[in-house]
Amino acid sequence: MTALHPPEPAELLVGLDADDTLWHSEVHFELTQAKVRQLLAPNIDIERFDAQLLAVERRNLGFFGYGVKGFALSLVETAIEVTDGRIPARDIGAILEWAKEMMSHPVELLDHVAEVVPAVARAHRVVVITKGDLFHQEAKVAASGLAEHFEGVEIVSEKAVGDYRKVLDRYGVEPSRFVMVGNSLRSDVLPVVELGGWGVHVPYEITWALEHAELPDPLADRVVRLDDLGQLPATLRSIAAQLGPRT
Amino acid sequence: MTALHPPEPAELLVGLDADDTLWHSEVHFELTQAKVRQLLAPNIDIERFDAQLLAVERRNLGFFGYGVKGFALSLVETAIEVTDGRIPARDIGAILEWAKEMMSHPVELLDHVAEVVPAVARAHRVVVITKGDLFHQEAKVAASGLAEHFEGVEIVSEKAVGDYRKVLDRYGVEPSRFVMVGNSLRSDVLPVVELGGWGVHVPYEITWALEHAELPDPLADRVVRLDDLGQLPATLRSIAAQLGPRT
Repeated sequence: MTALHPPEPAELLVGLDADDTLWHSEVHFELTQAKVRQLLAPNIDIERFDAQLLAVERRNLGFFGYGVKGFALSLVETAIEVTDGRIPARDIGAILEWAKEMMSHPVELLDHVAEVVPAVARAHRVVVITKGDLFHQEAKVAASGLAEHFEGVEIVSEKAVGDYRKVLDRYGVEPSRFVMVGNSLRSDVLPVVELGGWGVHVPYEITWALEHAELPDPLADRVVRLDDLGQLPATLRSIAAQLGPRT
Repeated sequence: MTALHPPEPAELLVGLDADDTLWHSEVHFELTQAKVRQLLAPNIDIERFDAQLLAVERRNLGFFGYGVKGFALSLVETAIEVTDGRIPARDIGAILEWAKEMMSHPVELLDHVAEVVPAVARAHRVVVITKGDLFHQEAKVAASGLAEHFEGVEIVSEKAVGDYRKVLDRYGVEPSRFVMVGNSLRSDVLPVVELGGWGVHVPYEITWALEHAELPDPLADRVVRLDDLGQLPATLRSIAAQLGPRT
């Protein structure tokens, strides 16, 4: 039998990370941390505060998971610790208000996102895959103006290999046809490549210390690094061309 | 054509709420609230504290959503307010520790749950549908020992009609074949019945003030009230019998 039409181009499932891939996030954590630092100055050692906050966040991750609410609780805990309990309650109240400002802050899309996401969604299935607070992430997706382009929004508590496998099962896609795009090597690229998928790494200007990772060499042929999302459509075309038409 | 086998019994999609339906939850919020009350006594008016906490929780729901972390932030905010900022930072530190205890508290199944959930899962598709904190809810499902019986775990930020519709679409089920089981009339029963499904209301010993609701009369024929989950298998058989075999 002869095909009446040329073969369809390979459709991919494109996973998009959200925070610091589609919109600014880490910068708001850093700005809030700077405000708390200033609130506590000059009575504390700034470096001790930063180091202690990181230690508290690391130790609280198993209790609170990711997101602004856990960050706020860790900030308060750290402020109490570094002031040896001398921080006035009113100052703790100020930290809580800053946390609420973070939760209700307008979504600021990163460069190219507003054009690239609709373009990618015309050619491929697009799913947001993000870690963190369910409530806050849903609010940000809704506020982004991009929701109509997403086949789904998968908010997960961790981004390990098994978490990605579950998402692929849910969408009925082979790892070889899955491309994950994000700013974190540790969360967005390495587990997906390990699973047999493709990783597009788009670094953000700052990376939270707990997200740092190195890319092992043997995996590098299924990883692309882009300066910004503007180059994503061309990258996806190139990956799709390597895969050939859908079978 | 004559059927070679008797028709299959009607399979239902059974949605189970989690907190205070499968395991104790609200009691831990109340116990923590009681500890904070005691911490602040005798310097504050207890009734003012309880009323103020509820007001703060209501006002913070739009910032924080449901769950322990938002509760902890609201507790701290209330403690600062009712003491006019005089609460010592160390006492706020104690509240944070209690929040962590809530996050890591062992899961205590309610009566009959350990037997009924596997029995229901043999006859029907079972999905947990729960509100609240993604991280904490996933941890509780994992710790419950029941995860293998669930086809899925849907953690949602709100349980309104549209949220249930999305879940039914995902599982490919008509509302008439969906039965939601839970302790909250407002979240588990009313929206499901409005959608055309069935509600099984299993009241818990205490109900959070923000979950109170009244059942309107015209809906009552698709709502069953049970004293505990022990009667659930018989209730589902009765609903399935009314629906007849799968078409």
